[in-house]
Amino acid sequence: MGHGIDELLERRDVATLQVELKDMTTVAVADEMSRRNTAEQAVIFRLLDKDRAVQVFEYLDVTHQAELLTGLREARFADLLLTLPDDDRAQLLGEMPAAVAARMMTDLPTDRRTVTAELLGYPAESAGRIMTPVPTVIDVGNSREQALKKLRGRQLRNRDIAVLAVTDSTRQLVGVVNLASLVTAADGTPVSELMNVETHAVRATEDQEVAARLVQEADLLALPVVDHEGRFLGMITVDDAMEILEQEVTEDVYRAGGSEPLKQPYLTATVFDLARKRGVWLLVLIVTAVLTVNVMSFFEDTLASVVVLATFVPMVTGTGGNAGSQAASSVVRALAVDEVRPRDIWKVIWREIRVGFLLGIFLGALIFPFIALIYEWRIGAVMALTIVGICTWACIVGGVLPLIARKIGVDPAVFSTPVVSTLVDATGLVIYFSIAQVILASML
Amino acid sequence: MGHGIDELLERRDVATLQVELKDMTTVAVADEMSRRNTAEQAVIFRLLDKDRAVQVFEYLDVTHQAELLTGLREARFADLLLTLPDDDRAQLLGEMPAAVAARMMTDLPTDRRTVTAELLGYPAESAGRIMTPVPTVIDVGNSREQALKKLRGRQLRNRDIAVLAVTDSTRQLVGVVNLASLVTAADGTPVSELMNVETHAVRATEDQEVAARLVQEADLLALPVVDHEGRFLGMITVDDAMEILEQEVTEDVYRAGGSEPLKQPYLTATVFDLARKRGVWLLVLIVTAVLTVNVMSFFEDTLASVVVLATFVPMVTGTGGNAGSQAASSVVRALAVDEVRPRDIWKVIWREIRVGFLLGIFLGALIFPFIALIYEWRIGAVMALTIVGICTWACIVGGVLPLIARKIGVDPAVFSTPVVSTLVDATGLVIYFSIAQVILASML
Repeated sequence: MGHGIDELLERRDVATLQVELKDMTTVAVADEMSRRNTAEQAVIFRLLDKDRAVQVFEYLDVTHQAELLTGLREARFADLLLTLPDDDRAQLLGEMPAAVAARMMTDLPTDRRTVTAELLGYPAESAGRIMTPVPTVIDVGNSREQALKKLRGRQLRNRDIAVLAVTDSTRQLVGVVNLASLVTAADGTPVSELMNVETHAVRATEDQEVAARLVQEADLLALPVVDHEGRFLGMITVDDAMEILEQEVTEDVYRAGGSEPLKQPYLTATVFDLARKRGVWLLVLIVTAVLTVNVMSFFEDTLASVVVLATFVPMVTGTGGNAGSQAASSVVRALAVDEVRPRDIWKVIWREIRVGFLLGIFLGALIFPFIALIYEWRIGAVMALTIVGICTWACIVGGVLPLIARKIGVDPAVFSTPVVSTLVDATGLVIYFSIAQVILASML
Repeated sequence: MGHGIDELLERRDVATLQVELKDMTTVAVADEMSRRNTAEQAVIFRLLDKDRAVQVFEYLDVTHQAELLTGLREARFADLLLTLPDDDRAQLLGEMPAAVAARMMTDLPTDRRTVTAELLGYPAESAGRIMTPVPTVIDVGNSREQALKKLRGRQLRNRDIAVLAVTDSTRQLVGVVNLASLVTAADGTPVSELMNVETHAVRATEDQEVAARLVQEADLLALPVVDHEGRFLGMITVDDAMEILEQEVTEDVYRAGGSEPLKQPYLTATVFDLARKRGVWLLVLIVTAVLTVNVMSFFEDTLASVVVLATFVPMVTGTGGNAGSQAASSVVRALAVDEVRPRDIWKVIWREIRVGFLLGIFLGALIFPFIALIYEWRIGAVMALTIVGICTWACIVGGVLPLIARKIGVDPAVFSTPVVSTLVDATGLVIYFSIAQVILASML
């Protein structure tokens, strides 16, 4: 058996190794581990099911526990696991027991923490990746004095202990207590009286953005992160939440402007990088714009007989694009701050129909006399009606696309201005030429 | 004299009253005040110069001080001052002495606080308007125990005391001390050893956004607000800072989409409101679009002889608009997060020239064979060269306009997509038709 494991470790055949370990007793696994170096111990431990891992960890004596923790943090172990393909790694790394996870993360420098969070099996962009491990939890049975005493003499950042996790003997999160409450309370008050039990908390696998938005909306200084069994792992502090929201806004702004977000600051990104991020979308947009070429070709006869119609094409597409992008940006923002949800789609459509129609009437009435005077009244009528039609249509398209995007799991910001305006361009031209053909029938 | 003041108060001639008060002695002013009702006391006090106000306040006994504070908070007084025209009010209301201002704000409900901040003379959108008055300041001479004792038994929110202001006997801010430092320090440690003297602070008249961004960038839990003499007034807490930054982002997103920001959530705003916020900009944009009509008219002969040129007009303006909006959104965002400043304008231009040229070459090379095959090679060449020219030009325009906007004090977000694309439309058409005239000379 021992030989088998040696070989499997040698070959890095972690999948088979995991199956082998399933059939062994807790004691046998612990024995196997004690005979190996720290990196190998870590590999074996990490491949155990969660329940088994807890049992093994508890079976080990304190020295071996410390040794294992060292192994789990070692660069050799990280190198080994991080060279596995992403899928394999995600499949192999189950959730680490909370007590071990929290101890592993504590006191690590931030850059190592990112790698470690990956090793702990928390998915990319998850709350587990950004949580701050907090070395101090308050026992639910403590008094105010006992809790405060626990903090004395330690190097603790203000934002890490402004809110303290209160846990029971199994590390289950039972509530949070504010440092201010501990400080201002009367002597002898039990922590259980001071704590807030209806506390917000997220799982380590939850999306970072969801966690960050919760911090913002509930005005929290810190949000507890727990594992699937509700055991306390760490905190997401308000400064980290702000940073995530800021990154998120940057991504939205780039997408809204029609390009992929940059990973580094504008002035330090290479020119080639800038071009690449934008080029992808510009290509998509120019291919979509082929639609407009088709529409224009289709109405070429109409254009040839009334050349003045061409004169207004940029104004028609421009106005459609602008009205559409206004609607899209309102709805994208409303989605981002949770004011609108995909199920509100009919409400949004009905609003946008009315807003677009109002805008169209307003602008149409304004431009009609000018165009009628300079060209002739029929051209004026074509333009006025086109503006009404295109504003209404553009508002509907602009309002609906972000909602559909959210529904199908695409970032709604992608459907801001450039994409919307390119889509509205072609359909807007159809509206324009159709109206022209009817009104100018005698001239064609 | 007393009669004169009666009459001036009656007539609400605060300007003359202010001049009258300048000529009176401190004792005379205090005497005048003691003979009047609380609202009138408040008016007189509020019209005094700052130095005089401090003197008068100190001259009053404790009972009269309390009476005056009551008057300053009274609805009658607020009504009186708030009915004055804005300019008058701003001119009349000098900065309130810090000790009085802080005492006035404390314990007020949030809605009353907004009005009070206005009465205190802090301009709209200023830090003073959103600061939280903090009833507890720590004396620089205190020990850790004395400071903690001061907090005992009080109803204090966590975020209001996570960071505490340390002041001297004249209420001058000398530093801040973290609650965590007080809690974790050894017995008897003087506050002066625990406090951070190189602390960030803003004046009450500073822009809210500047203050909020400082909170974010320096990862603060609270930012002290001081008056012009550096006396402590209150704190801007991290949750308020987050809210301001969020509003600011919402404004930017709306402006980037080409409309004025809504004051209420999308679904609760009236349709008319939505239309009004967008209509203003849509009008500006359609008027600007008249430029494109002019350009098209100017090249009408060219269009009439080669009708196929009209076919590509939406693609030309669309691509220009998209490239411009990509550049604009990058630079607007970089400005918002302080990665780029107006003085970087030449760096930005040089980057955008290269990015735009690269994008143009890439797209131009891609579309040339298709157009050459379907139409003819000269049309293909016109389009390819136009795309190179228009991408380069659009990137420059999109990159530069937000910087100019910031320089002249306009929100750079205004120059995102719709405005940039409308401006690029007209100039892009000039590029298009000029290239066409040269290459297609034989066909015209």
